[in-house]
Amino acid sequence: MIKIAVDCFGGDHSPEANIDGALASLEVFPDLKIILSGDAPVLEKSLSARACPRERIEILHAPEVIGCDEKPTDVIRLKKESSMIKAIRLLRDDDTVSAMVSTGSTGALVAGVLTRLGVLEGVIRPAFCPLLPTMKGGIVGICDSGANVEVTPAHLKQFAIMASLYLENVYGVQKPRTALLNVGKEAEKGDSIRRDAYAILSNLPCINFVGNMESRDLLSGAYDVVVCDGFSGNVLVKTTEGTALELLMKVKESILSRNIYKIGALFQKRMFRDLKEMMNYQNYGGSVLLGCSKTVVKGHGSSKAVAVQKCIEQAYRMEAGGLNSKIISALDKYDHYQ
Amino acid sequence: MIKIAVDCFGGDHSPEANIDGALASLEVFPDLKIILSGDAPVLEKSLSARACPRERIEILHAPEVIGCDEKPTDVIRLKKESSMIKAIRLLRDDDTVSAMVSTGSTGALVAGVLTRLGVLEGVIRPAFCPLLPTMKGGIVGICDSGANVEVTPAHLKQFAIMASLYLENVYGVQKPRTALLNVGKEAEKGDSIRRDAYAILSNLPCINFVGNMESRDLLSGAYDVVVCDGFSGNVLVKTTEGTALELLMKVKESILSRNIYKIGALFQKRMFRDLKEMMNYQNYGGSVLLGCSKTVVKGHGSSKAVAVQKCIEQAYRMEAGGLNSKIISALDKYDHYQ
Repeated sequence: MIKIAVDCFGGDHSPEANIDGALASLEVFPDLKIILSGDAPVLEKSLSARACPRERIEILHAPEVIGCDEKPTDVIRLKKESSMIKAIRLLRDDDTVSAMVSTGSTGALVAGVLTRLGVLEGVIRPAFCPLLPTMKGGIVGICDSGANVEVTPAHLKQFAIMASLYLENVYGVQKPRTALLNVGKEAEKGDSIRRDAYAILSNLPCINFVGNMESRDLLSGAYDVVVCDGFSGNVLVKTTEGTALELLMKVKESILSRNIYKIGALFQKRMFRDLKEMMNYQNYGGSVLLGCSKTVVKGHGSSKAVAVQKCIEQAYRMEAGGLNSKIISALDKYDHYQ
Repeated sequence: MIKIAVDCFGGDHSPEANIDGALASLEVFPDLKIILSGDAPVLEKSLSARACPRERIEILHAPEVIGCDEKPTDVIRLKKESSMIKAIRLLRDDDTVSAMVSTGSTGALVAGVLTRLGVLEGVIRPAFCPLLPTMKGGIVGICDSGANVEVTPAHLKQFAIMASLYLENVYGVQKPRTALLNVGKEAEKGDSIRRDAYAILSNLPCINFVGNMESRDLLSGAYDVVVCDGFSGNVLVKTTEGTALELLMKVKESILSRNIYKIGALFQKRMFRDLKEMMNYQNYGGSVLLGCSKTVVKGHGSSKAVAVQKCIEQAYRMEAGGLNSKIISALDKYDHYQ
């Protein structure tokens, strides 16, 4: 039996999308139990209106709500009864609960995890690892995408180890091709952090290091894992999402601008639906926060039920595959490489 | 009379594209003179095969060729007779030459400019400012996009001043909306460099600072200038280009995958041509290296004649508008703001 806590508030479509996503996961995994964190009367009412295996659902009452403009430090200090902080505390205190999923504030989640939950043995800092679809039909993981705006080569080494294990164990990618994000392919490119990290990653026997990657090649399908500081990783992920979205909107706008284009589009309905589906981040789950002492998955703030379900699925698979213990033993064995 | 040196080697389509681009610019600007830098016999032969105003073209003989894998430091030390280094030296030594355009190695150009040419009075470091098309039909300048992988808030302040003046004077953008690239909109986001830069930019009366920009909004049309360190700026620009290219290729591949999609595309030929044209960086000129003691424009390595022509046009307009003297006086007046 795997027990996963779901923070039901904080997302754009909370709590309905979070509850629906949780219920859908219960159908997929018979040995899954869900703890819904949030205002109990609201959650009870929502559940009573749905057909669900009530015996596999618990409710963790958390009456406080986090506003979208609240500072992370204020949240962890002042909103102890919020759905997010209560879920984090439950994760810390209850050995039977393996993981949590949240669609709430990223900053508050990182701060809460760091102050209330802690990291795995040997981990310096946890790091986000969202996935993006490549144009070859696969996926690429970007680690870190925003938990650490400043890093050292030692951080980047750990990100590489954790993200490689994640892609291998949860997504079955054999020997993930792991690259360092840089401004050019050559080993001497970038600042001293990048040059030192390049040397360390080249010597690391537990990962398949393929050298520096220039950001224009992210979606080419040539890489499975990209290692970077949280600042440029954030730029990498958001620029990709933003450009794809703007471009698809531009295509749509262009089609609507002339009747003859609209006629053409009638022949391509399925094609555009497939393209939109391929680019829909809701299908690729959330951004796993690798290195926490228990599994934490952050869903996009705009997650709908299917995205929440994917996040729970990710958390479940991380648990089922024993990812965290693999990270601990890999760091124990390889973290001294320099 | 404005004299511009054109480095004719180092690009993928050199020297033909560079020569053709130069000749096309001569037609546009009657008071322009061009100095072609490169192997004289080769250049003479190319010119003799073309109709051109020979009296407005000089040749600067530079017999050495820079290989694409050569280290920038080796180039400036060992390739003194290369077309790029000779053009830089001419720019330094000849008061009648105002500007240079190169499609050669970016690293070598930056190193050459720093060691041989120098910066404008008051400038700490020169910075690249390429332009990207927004989805609203305008352009956005990104400064720096790769000349400085590490920066301080004082650098970012100067980038903001120089890039704002550039967009205003060369592209007629009134009060360019200038943003700081960051991982979130709030003033306290990012590392200490970003937070300090935010405070400085907010107080700077000579720019129209509109706050932090998240990278997903780059093409939204809400910004005219984005200020960033050269590492994340490089990621920003290359990710945008890469994603747009990969996505357009994916659309093309999808259309070709089924006959019915091909039929639809017949109705949209002009639409796709327009979209491709809009996304074609060759139409937006090169990446100006702002802050050099004379005007330097770096064209993309894959520049064809039209792109080289646009670069020369940029250099011409920067000169005609007196951009560099405006940068000097703005820095003199506002660089002490903190």
